[in-house]
Amino acid sequence: MSGNTFGKILRLTTFGESHGKAVGGILDGFPAGVPFDLSLIQQELDRRKPGQSKLVSPRKEPDEVEILSGVFEGYSTGTPIAFLVWNKDHRSGDYDHLKDKFRPSHADFVYQKKYGLRDHRGGGRSSARETVARVIAGAFAKMLLRELGVTVISYVYSIGDMMLEKPYAELDLEKTDKSTVRCPDDEMSEKMIKLIEDTAQEGDTLGGRIRCVVSNVPPGWGEPVFDKLHADLAKAMMSINAVKGFEIGSGFAGTKMKGSEHNDIYVKKEGKIKTATNNSGGIQGGISNGNDIYFNVAFKPVATLMKDQKTLDVAGNETVLKGKGRHDVCVVPRAVPIVDAMAALVLADHYLQNRTSRF
Amino acid sequence: MSGNTFGKILRLTTFGESHGKAVGGILDGFPAGVPFDLSLIQQELDRRKPGQSKLVSPRKEPDEVEILSGVFEGYSTGTPIAFLVWNKDHRSGDYDHLKDKFRPSHADFVYQKKYGLRDHRGGGRSSARETVARVIAGAFAKMLLRELGVTVISYVYSIGDMMLEKPYAELDLEKTDKSTVRCPDDEMSEKMIKLIEDTAQEGDTLGGRIRCVVSNVPPGWGEPVFDKLHADLAKAMMSINAVKGFEIGSGFAGTKMKGSEHNDIYVKKEGKIKTATNNSGGIQGGISNGNDIYFNVAFKPVATLMKDQKTLDVAGNETVLKGKGRHDVCVVPRAVPIVDAMAALVLADHYLQNRTSRF
Amino acid sequence: MSGNTFGKILRLTTFGESHGKAVGGILDGFPAGVPFDLSLIQQELDRRKPGQSKLVSPRKEPDEVEILSGVFEGYSTGTPIAFLVWNKDHRSGDYDHLKDKFRPSHADFVYQKKYGLRDHRGGGRSSARETVARVIAGAFAKMLLRELGVTVISYVYSIGDMMLEKPYAELDLEKTDKSTVRCPDDEMSEKMIKLIEDTAQEGDTLGGRIRCVVSNVPPGWGEPVFDKLHADLAKAMMSINAVKGFEIGSGFAGTKMKGSEHNDIYVKKEGKIKTATNNSGGIQGGISNGNDIYFNVAFKPVATLMKDQKTLDVAGNETVLKGKGRHDVCVVPRAVPIVDAMAALVLADHYLQNRTSRF
Amino acid sequence: MSGNTFGKILRLTTFGESHGKAVGGILDGFPAGVPFDLSLIQQELDRRKPGQSKLVSPRKEPDEVEILSGVFEGYSTGTPIAFLVWNKDHRSGDYDHLKDKFRPSHADFVYQKKYGLRDHRGGGRSSARETVARVIAGAFAKMLLRELGVTVISYVYSIGDMMLEKPYAELDLEKTDKSTVRCPDDEMSEKMIKLIEDTAQEGDTLGGRIRCVVSNVPPGWGEPVFDKLHADLAKAMMSINAVKGFEIGSGFAGTKMKGSEHNDIYVKKEGKIKTATNNSGGIQGGISNGNDIYFNVAFKPVATLMKDQKTLDVAGNETVLKGKGRHDVCVVPRAVPIVDAMAALVLADHYLQNRTSRF
Repeated sequence: MSGNTFGKILRLTTFGESHGKAVGGILDGFPAGVPFDLSLIQQELDRRKPGQSKLVSPRKEPDEVEILSGVFEGYSTGTPIAFLVWNKDHRSGDYDHLKDKFRPSHADFVYQKKYGLRDHRGGGRSSARETVARVIAGAFAKMLLRELGVTVISYVYSIGDMMLEKPYAELDLEKTDKSTVRCPDDEMSEKMIKLIEDTAQEGDTLGGRIRCVVSNVPPGWGEPVFDKLHADLAKAMMSINAVKGFEIGSGFAGTKMKGSEHNDIYVKKEGKIKTATNNSGGIQGGISNGNDIYFNVAFKPVATLMKDQKTLDVAGNETVLKGKGRHDVCVVPRAVPIVDAMAALVLADHYLQNRTSRF
Repeated sequence: MSGNTFGKILRLTTFGESHGKAVGGILDGFPAGVPFDLSLIQQELDRRKPGQSKLVSPRKEPDEVEILSGVFEGYSTGTPIAFLVWNKDHRSGDYDHLKDKFRPSHADFVYQKKYGLRDHRGGGRSSARETVARVIAGAFAKMLLRELGVTVISYVYSIGDMMLEKPYAELDLEKTDKSTVRCPDDEMSEKMIKLIEDTAQEGDTLGGRIRCVVSNVPPGWGEPVFDKLHADLAKAMMSINAVKGFEIGSGFAGTKMKGSEHNDIYVKKEGKIKTATNNSGGIQGGISNGNDIYFNVAFKPVATLMKDQKTLDVAGNETVLKGKGRHDVCVVPRAVPIVDAMAALVLADHYLQNRTSRF
Repeated sequence: MSGNTFGKILRLTTFGESHGKAVGGILDGFPAGVPFDLSLIQQELDRRKPGQSKLVSPRKEPDEVEILSGVFEGYSTGTPIAFLVWNKDHRSGDYDHLKDKFRPSHADFVYQKKYGLRDHRGGGRSSARETVARVIAGAFAKMLLRELGVTVISYVYSIGDMMLEKPYAELDLEKTDKSTVRCPDDEMSEKMIKLIEDTAQEGDTLGGRIRCVVSNVPPGWGEPVFDKLHADLAKAMMSINAVKGFEIGSGFAGTKMKGSEHNDIYVKKEGKIKTATNNSGGIQGGISNGNDIYFNVAFKPVATLMKDQKTLDVAGNETVLKGKGRHDVCVVPRAVPIVDAMAALVLADHYLQNRTSRF
Repeated sequence: MSGNTFGKILRLTTFGESHGKAVGGILDGFPAGVPFDLSLIQQELDRRKPGQSKLVSPRKEPDEVEILSGVFEGYSTGTPIAFLVWNKDHRSGDYDHLKDKFRPSHADFVYQKKYGLRDHRGGGRSSARETVARVIAGAFAKMLLRELGVTVISYVYSIGDMMLEKPYAELDLEKTDKSTVRCPDDEMSEKMIKLIEDTAQEGDTLGGRIRCVVSNVPPGWGEPVFDKLHADLAKAMMSINAVKGFEIGSGFAGTKMKGSEHNDIYVKKEGKIKTATNNSGGIQGGISNGNDIYFNVAFKPVATLMKDQKTLDVAGNETVLKGKGRHDVCVVPRAVPIVDAMAALVLADHYLQNRTSRF
């Protein structure tokens, strides 16, 4: 069944395999009259692309977006926006040794079982290359949110067991992109880089966590009881490759608090009703309450190792998977723009949804 | 915009306010020919209902389901199944003092902002009473899953800072319902009960965590790239009142593991391809891989306290919210059947979706 | 698969079998703040109900609506509106003789083949009694459209071969409900009544046509390229029992016109851009253009005859179906409020959809 | 709001403006394992393309499809199928004179009103060029239906007032594509060609009607009560540019029949339950009954004339629209593959939907 569309009013449908001709998508429901900004798309793609630094995969993918429709004379027209990025640097031969083997903790086995056949080259549809389309669509969502004053900023707060404990309010989030690992704290950034370098030496890989902060969302976005704003954010994040967890506001730690500690008391700030604390993470009952929305996303370590692993082949026989190819030790820094993009899509969609909630 | 429908092929639409006439829903897309089991519904409703023990709210709600359609001579007919539970024990007068006040960490404020008006009685639509409909629909999903051999079992593994660290495989999950707090470990169950009693004395409240284990799902359920099985589970769980976090398999802890530790190596067990470990939580690339699916859900502490709190009224003036009413100190034990129900709905829907994936 | 939901932002889900406990539905996405008018619902139900005159089925169904949620203190609240009508006058015994026979041109056979079992009483889900829910939801849509100044009026323009050729602009549509057959022309109304009476004598049945006129829709409603306003109207009408055709504006007759005759030239009327003629039926490119929207709906003759018919039983053997029961000779007059209701639902939904089309 | 997606399990999303870079789409939910047939796509595109004969627009559009994803080693993979056709022959300068004028019975005015701006070149998104994507997706649907033995064949049965009255069963439908106007009756074909040539001389245009016949659909496809098979067919057809009417089986003429004439009596044919007549058009209660499905589609005359017309400009002033450009006198013959394609998409989707209707 179709599972490649996301959103209700603003709907993104994506396509593309890692080593097919192209990856891309169609963004439908984007309102007319939003100023178009090609440079924003390219900037976000550049943040996602491999080969940004020696820490990440050295594959060369120029990843230049081509917009095919929906934009005219500098504005969105209200018609579907189609876009694609051609796959240029695919050395499919690199993957011949994987044709008949199931890579551990990859999707090879389940695609084979589900569909009865699969495009094995580079993981096919299950490759993280698919997120190119998310990043492009997310940039459009950001163009809309920008007109509304809403900002979405994510950063890496842990890699492996290196964790930045400071609350986001005490950080200078502008520094995020200056850090190779997208951690806005200089000292922690250094430690994370060191950890990645050491792990690379071992042929091993790392996971980590991203925090996303959304500011200036007015009260009212979110559609209970199922399409709660944070439920849609959770689905958006969990749909990103390698994500294993999502928490908003106080999250898992909040389960250890008493109600009297956890409750966010209403107060007036600059004439607006806000809360004194923000354990709710800016959302109550599934609807934004006017405070910052913030949440955490957990990424497992990269499944492709540079060392040998045992596995089974398609016939069910034991075999060894050689460690080779061009892969990231840790994808978390490159996942920052993807988290941003999915958050922006959810928020832009809910902005539109909420425009129909009152007569 | 409509946000009260969940699912793609199997679709649940719910209705009802806490102190309206009834709560209920329509389950559409349920296949014809599934044996109907009224007692299963009632059993699940009884697990959810208030007044089960001295630990939970003493409100009396018989919560008897009335099935209005879609079942005939002991089988589902393939037509929509409508059901409701009448609201009998609503002492709406209890809520008059809340008409003009925003309860901290409740949805009063956001409903007022979003819709311009609200049914303030007992939280109206934002009340957890809405979950009655989820539990009933979930029981139907379980009737279908039962025919497929799939089981869904949840239990409480933490309340406040009391946490059961044992893996689920070492527990006797049959004991869950014998524990007042639905924790299958006798010793921990006692500690949790003691904690709840002590916290009740303080007029304070508690949160906690639930683990859900789904067994016997064959490989192939889940629809990448957006409708991944765990992404839909995450949305389902995050849409439950008071939930702040979701993690599957290794979850947040998995971010600290190396790839070589985290990868689940394929092995043959009883002639079937399984994995030696299960850090993936039974899902890879968004598709079930034939191992147990397990995930954790975090519930914040109950927002309604038995002690006074400061807040604002609808005019924006400071006021005091008196602690009174009939409320749970900790809803987590009663949330177990709700987690079960939402998991069952997601799985039954994905079973049906997957029936269309191959020619 | 679920097929009992209609609409995108304003979504109606219905349930109920002819001889089950109740029929009803949930209307989700209805905006908050619309004044609630119970009498409008009852008025529309009364127009649909059997036993209005000696021309229609003498079954007694009080058809009193019960609203279960979504309305509070005289206004819609933005939460789902659930409603039902109890089935009171079901003499299921009347249908025992149909249990094993497939009535010609009814849905007995196809339900049996599709689902493997069926509720045979009164046609079960395939009964036109299901339209009760449409009429109630349509009344809500009319409450919203009324606030926007949009009106929806339908009338019968043919029964059998008796056809009123006058354009709607030359008729006094206020007279529609004064006619037993809902034809606003006195002379034609008489002829139609006579035809129905004569046909009743023969134990035979009749079909006919309804025209619907929607006024005051501003330009801009409709979502190309698939959710064109008239495409959604077509689906809405074709989903009504016994409907075999739909045409808008010039319709089938328009295929015989030259382009120079058919084109609607733009002119200014009272400062607004309108068209001199209206062969387009108020919609161009799938979007309303500010002129009246009008369309025709064709109903086949009633399939239940008062005389014997040959047919097959479930075992595939020939049998005779006796003519008996309580049935209409011609349902077209009673279908007028159903056409109204479905049109109102489509228009209200598209009004909401269009609120998201521009930034 | 997004309106560019069609279908429920098999979902087509299209994009593209007449004079943008490309037109195309994404077909999601197409099952894995269907043999891929590029030549079928090209053949259908060739039937749709302009310049096939002297009767149609002389524009040269090679219309070669490019498949970007979802197909691997000769089979569909179950992942989204993206495709596009580059726009090569766009002489946008041809449209400069239309920038500020509203063409009568075109969508210029309504797009301007709805979106506040528009791509005026060649009608932009409202151009029939958009149907390229439908034809390509329809060819995929046909690949699936072919495996099931289901055939979809359409032909022109009227142009202007030239109408072929013979039932389809008396025609040799194989002759359809041999006729320049796609009318399978030699004599009528000649008359239609003559009519088109004469009308071209006048600078005027013509409409017409297409009949579609679908054979070998088993009983059971269709999802009442809203997603009835013929309701979805109606929406599909009405969403095609220039369509003003849809009727199935007896259609509008059926309203003049008595019930005793119209009812389709069940009989056994070759061991299968069929009906003696087929006034139902192969669908009862919204579900296929195993007989041929057939329906008619009405197309209005082409709105673009080769002679001058009065109209208004964007400022609301009267102006004259000069007759020029490269346009069809009658699009109905070229619409045959589009009707085919949309019918195939509806049927393939309902085949998949019905796979989930029984346990």
